[in-house]
Amino acid sequence: MSSTESAPRRLHLNAFIMANGHHEAAWRHPAVDPRAALTLQHYVDIARTAERGRLDSIFLADAVALHGNVKHNTHSAFEPLTLLSALAASTQHVGLIATASTTYNHPYTLARAFASLDHLSGGRAGWNIVTSAGQDEALNFGLPGRPDGRYARATEFVEVTTALWDSFDDAAVLADKRTGIYADTDLIRPVDHHGEHFDVRGPLNIRRPVQGYPLLVQAGSSEAGKEYAAQFAEAVFTAQQTLNDGRAFYADLKGRLASHGRRPAELLVLPGISPVIGRTEAEAHAKEAELTALISPAYGLAQLSAMLDTRLTEADLDGPLPDVGTATEGNQSRFTLVTDLARRESLTVRQLIERLAGGRGHRVFAGTPEQVADQIEEWFTGGAADGFNVMPPTLPGGLTDFVDLVVPELQRRGLFRTEYEGSTLRENYGLARPANRLHHNQKETAA
Amino acid sequence: MSSTESAPRRLHLNAFIMANGHHEAAWRHPAVDPRAALTLQHYVDIARTAERGRLDSIFLADAVALHGNVKHNTHSAFEPLTLLSALAASTQHVGLIATASTTYNHPYTLARAFASLDHLSGGRAGWNIVTSAGQDEALNFGLPGRPDGRYARATEFVEVTTALWDSFDDAAVLADKRTGIYADTDLIRPVDHHGEHFDVRGPLNIRRPVQGYPLLVQAGSSEAGKEYAAQFAEAVFTAQQTLNDGRAFYADLKGRLASHGRRPAELLVLPGISPVIGRTEAEAHAKEAELTALISPAYGLAQLSAMLDTRLTEADLDGPLPDVGTATEGNQSRFTLVTDLARRESLTVRQLIERLAGGRGHRVFAGTPEQVADQIEEWFTGGAADGFNVMPPTLPGGLTDFVDLVVPELQRRGLFRTEYEGSTLRENYGLARPANRLHHNQKETAA
Repeated sequence: MSSTESAPRRLHLNAFIMANGHHEAAWRHPAVDPRAALTLQHYVDIARTAERGRLDSIFLADAVALHGNVKHNTHSAFEPLTLLSALAASTQHVGLIATASTTYNHPYTLARAFASLDHLSGGRAGWNIVTSAGQDEALNFGLPGRPDGRYARATEFVEVTTALWDSFDDAAVLADKRTGIYADTDLIRPVDHHGEHFDVRGPLNIRRPVQGYPLLVQAGSSEAGKEYAAQFAEAVFTAQQTLNDGRAFYADLKGRLASHGRRPAELLVLPGISPVIGRTEAEAHAKEAELTALISPAYGLAQLSAMLDTRLTEADLDGPLPDVGTATEGNQSRFTLVTDLARRESLTVRQLIERLAGGRGHRVFAGTPEQVADQIEEWFTGGAADGFNVMPPTLPGGLTDFVDLVVPELQRRGLFRTEYEGSTLRENYGLARPANRLHHNQKETAA
Repeated sequence: MSSTESAPRRLHLNAFIMANGHHEAAWRHPAVDPRAALTLQHYVDIARTAERGRLDSIFLADAVALHGNVKHNTHSAFEPLTLLSALAASTQHVGLIATASTTYNHPYTLARAFASLDHLSGGRAGWNIVTSAGQDEALNFGLPGRPDGRYARATEFVEVTTALWDSFDDAAVLADKRTGIYADTDLIRPVDHHGEHFDVRGPLNIRRPVQGYPLLVQAGSSEAGKEYAAQFAEAVFTAQQTLNDGRAFYADLKGRLASHGRRPAELLVLPGISPVIGRTEAEAHAKEAELTALISPAYGLAQLSAMLDTRLTEADLDGPLPDVGTATEGNQSRFTLVTDLARRESLTVRQLIERLAGGRGHRVFAGTPEQVADQIEEWFTGGAADGFNVMPPTLPGGLTDFVDLVVPELQRRGLFRTEYEGSTLRENYGLARPANRLHHNQKETAA
């Protein structure tokens, strides 16, 4: 149906980067230097590896609070927008997607920072929009608990930021030395927004991003999250354990687009996958077992408690998952995923912890490069994915394995690019530069 | 009196970087490419030039609104924290000082961003603390006009940010693979701040900055600004036109420190100077005249109106400065400086505009490298300066001239370093790493 269907459909692959890797025991792995993740060089090396593999982007998750169990696991060493700005100067092609909260930022500040990152990187910025459900986050910002109406604020927030990005048109800069006219002020207009949450005059004090707007990404899988994604997001990251669940989510989300006047190709669905890669199947399973053996059961119980919002620290490791009640606001999709997994496979608490240790609910798959490529191809051609958020179990090793072993296999199958298609993240994702809504009559020009 | 007096006293020099240069007509100069200032490479080249000259830092001013006369003059192309993060990856030694507002940010967000920049740069971050008096800024953040109580908020803001920087001690990371203990949580504590403006639990989700705190800088010259500086600042940027005014400001500020339990050496006073450098005196004056000829009188009148908060756009260019009333809250020091200058030298409006065009009230000096060095030495040895904020009239040319012609002369005179003293901005400024107030018993370790 979309005009791109004549070209071969290609996968999109992000490297989801987290300290020492996504397996919760990654920092204890013999090949991992846990202190390296505290240095810029660690991330520079990873970004360059992703770029060598022609991956679409590197993606950084975020929360505005220290996670609850730093006694037993690493933390993010840097704030995403500053780290990705440093990486913009160290790379040339790979996209740079930062998570940032609509609940604890102001639209003027965030619109400006993302515009700056987009210009610094020549059009490679992406914004993973989160609404910050965490209690710990609320307490750092003077709220007594989880804020109400997070998605209503997030909706107004994106309306304001996109208007601000449109307010200072790139074409406004004339820099005409002879006449002394620096800018055509007809192309720089206030936004004069007056809403429930924000009053913002504008204009923004930085030109329209190279990409028009940075790529808009979202990861909520709740009903409110999916509706928000259908309205605004261009890429959705999601945790799906089975092909059937992946298909259902994919069809659900794509089906919501039409009511917002959008085509299916305007939103990419990217499930997470944490691939444990061995040159043989036995090597892959041995690698997985090596990581499993490093899990701290106490940490696993604490993580499971946090995921289910239920205190399970005294649970019998070798018994079934106890009664954990029902989901609370803010954890519904993760709650359902975890309890379904335990029930479907009749897992003991220990087994459940081991299954979640690799990807916190995202899908873990151990196998050869061909087997990993088979899984990716099956989901991609089977209506469950437009690509993947690749979550290396260890870093940098897990990403290097993926780039050196799986990417060439995907390229051989014609599923993945061998060179970047364009210079911006949008161009590589195959997404258009959004038209300027404030300066309708202006011709769109890529910077 | 201070223990550092036995070592030779050395100048500190920052490169104050603004788009195409500090002269308001810089972008129209034949040697300047006004579009270059819209690219990261422009700033990378400048930062490397500053580093080649062994300058202490590059400094970026900021406002959270577009300036009022973009029709006639360039704007800042990037947001400071993102730009300096990119420059952190492109340089090795030079300090990186970003301006950020205590009125329009939250302490958790800003403490985290500066800690991140400090870690990314290996301890080279500085924070120029501003309280944002601008009307345009207020309207971007939902305030009807200039906010009240800006310094009270700024005081609480710095108390919270410094507490947050102390909350996650560097020594907390153990990363003990054998025991599975990643962090010593006795060294990670909430700040539990409850004040008039902020409630912040903490801890910060990033380790203590390499420098303990980024270098704290301030530039307000009002009474409230000077008291704030005396309490918190370690470097003060100031606009002073004459040696006598410079001496008075220097003595005033240093004299305020004792009542806050601080020694004179703990705060450096750095006036601005915009040097127009020629190999001969005639060449220097010709360069200045060339820039003066590019001034747009309409722009000059608009700038003068903004500085004095009085509408002067219809003023007679060849008459004396009309009656401009009295200073308003937020512009006192600049108002006095400008009206004193006009009166002291009996300037016409046109002459006043020409005098202000170079440095917006900062001192402009045209001369040979030796004459510029003489001026710097006179202020430095004459009790008016610990160093200077160097404001190149054009960029990159004006900075290259300073580094290639003036720096060697200052080095010959033994006034300026030939190699960086340390690896952090504090070490190069000769300032100590602040003790951790939350973890008193911890030994201070430089990262």
